Amino acid sequence: MGEFELLAKVRERLPPAGARVRIASGDDAAVTVPGGATATSVDALVEGVHFRRDSATLAQIGRKALASALSDLAAMGAEAGEAYVVVGVPPDLDEDGCLELVDGILALANETGTTLAGGDVTRAPALTLAVTVVGHAPTAEQLVGRAGGAPGDALVLTGEIGGAAAGLLLLEQPELAASVPEATAERLRRRQLDPVPRLAAGRALAAAGARAMIDLSDGLGGDAVHLAASSGVAIRIEAGALPLASGLAEVAAAANRDPLELAASGGEDYELLAAIAPERLAVAMERVGAVGEIALTQVGEALDGEGVEIRLPGGAILEPAGFDQLG
Amino acid sequence: MGEFELLAKVRERLPPAGARVRIASGDDAAVTVPGGATATSVDALVEGVHFRRDSATLAQIGRKALASALSDLAAMGAEAGEAYVVVGVPPDLDEDGCLELVDGILALANETGTTLAGGDVTRAPALTLAVTVVGHAPTAEQLVGRAGGAPGDALVLTGEIGGAAAGLLLLEQPELAASVPEATAERLRRRQLDPVPRLAAGRALAAAGARAMIDLSDGLGGDAVHLAASSGVAIRIEAGALPLASGLAEVAAAANRDPLELAASGGEDYELLAAIAPERLAVAMERVGAVGEIALTQVGEALDGEGVEIRLPGGAILEPAGFDQLG
Repeated sequence: MGEFELLAKVRERLPPAGARVRIASGDDAAVTVPGGATATSVDALVEGVHFRRDSATLAQIGRKALASALSDLAAMGAEAGEAYVVVGVPPDLDEDGCLELVDGILALANETGTTLAGGDVTRAPALTLAVTVVGHAPTAEQLVGRAGGAPGDALVLTGEIGGAAAGLLLLEQPELAASVPEATAERLRRRQLDPVPRLAAGRALAAAGARAMIDLSDGLGGDAVHLAASSGVAIRIEAGALPLASGLAEVAAAANRDPLELAASGGEDYELLAAIAPERLAVAMERVGAVGEIALTQVGEALDGEGVEIRLPGGAILEPAGFDQLG
Repeated sequence: MGEFELLAKVRERLPPAGARVRIASGDDAAVTVPGGATATSVDALVEGVHFRRDSATLAQIGRKALASALSDLAAMGAEAGEAYVVVGVPPDLDEDGCLELVDGILALANETGTTLAGGDVTRAPALTLAVTVVGHAPTAEQLVGRAGGAPGDALVLTGEIGGAAAGLLLLEQPELAASVPEATAERLRRRQLDPVPRLAAGRALAAAGARAMIDLSDGLGGDAVHLAASSGVAIRIEAGALPLASGLAEVAAAANRDPLELAASGGEDYELLAAIAPERLAVAMERVGAVGEIALTQVGEALDGEGVEIRLPGGAILEPAGFDQLG
């Protein structure tokens, strides 16, 4: 299998490029005409560190790599635009495997309106994916960073959390599936294997006036710490208000784990956590509701000070913890 | 060493971001305001495939990774803008090593006006670098792809070729250095270890009206094949006109290799090969000359038909060959 032959086969699979793209894959560089501001993010996934080939198909691995990158664009309130994908191909992955991986990427690209505009393939000792995504907004002011949160802001969360952590438990210990209906177990496994980047909800939150936003890749606790530090505020999260994934409690009990700890420190839920002025909260609820996909829940508030505390219903404080990729 | 601690130390080293950058490293995504057209390219380098740590310093490895990516922007005639770097960190690379690598990247970024605007670090079995670069031009029409060459176009080449291949021979067989003065050997080794992206020459060629352009990463023969195929022309290169690197002949003789074969099939010279209408040739020579850095040489022409031939002075034809990264 040669690099050029594989790239030629990948190019045959590409649908027409998006309207901003003037030259797509196959030249020295892709040429686009952004027409406003861009948000650009890079995510890397390495076999044995971020995923295992025995618990996910190649299509799922490719799809999740793109989802995780697009989630960063969702957290900016950007519209998905272009993706550039590096695949490091290990000795035991043949051309069909590479194409299955690419098909997984392309499926989500099509669903999200993302153009796969370029990339590179190389040999590598382990399957490696590096995905660069570029999102768009009419102006830079319409994109939401992490730094704009202010004391008094409401802290809101899209969807439910803890599902990806429960799904990982189910994949690692299949016997735990007896604790929930099979449809629930399957939904939890999908939360782990096939996360959904909250692109529409992110744009709705940005349009509603969210002042700071982050996606939950490392876990609520760790990502709230990033948001608090960037915005120069303290964050208090009410554990009782957290929207826990359906089935999480049962799977956690069967695994002898604390469901709240799984929800707060388990990564990869890819929900959005945003700080928004209290007077914009109702608008945000309405706009995210209009997207139809998921709920928006107020889970806490920003305060003067620094750090993050998660208050349990009894008043005790849970220590936030994240997931450090080199740790 | 943790991911977040390392990233924090990298951020401390970053100079002020370029004027187009609104939010740089440290958020979910970098925010830029391109203000025209962008050219985006991705390059991956893996230890044991593209480089060895015993023949280059970590700073050199980082610098070359960025140089190779920027060379693709040079081949579009773009101005360098932003870079996003993924580093896959193997178990035996410590934090100081990572920072040395980043310093190598930053040195070239500063020299070329490139902002390191984001990235990711992760554990990996082998040192891996994936570099995404974004270049800029006022309009998409000012960027030069590979497809615009036409029969009758003059084929021009920047600088000299074969130097990187000779440098690789010198690094692999140090005893060959006796064949040339030490200053020459050192210059050839630098052509291999520290290639220069021809950004200014690329912009000059674009401004002079180059219709198709490619950088020589795989070797003159292989890259000419890409240019010919994309433009739908045949390419004839006159071997006698090729600007061979000084010292190549001596090193090739000492290694019992054909200098022309090294120049035509050795990769990584990162010179630019462009097709330009004959009536624009004098302007291109003048503009590249005004950059002051390197010469521009006419090495052949585009013809009706397809394929590439390299004609030797006696009339014989050399078969072009490139370097296929998975082959």
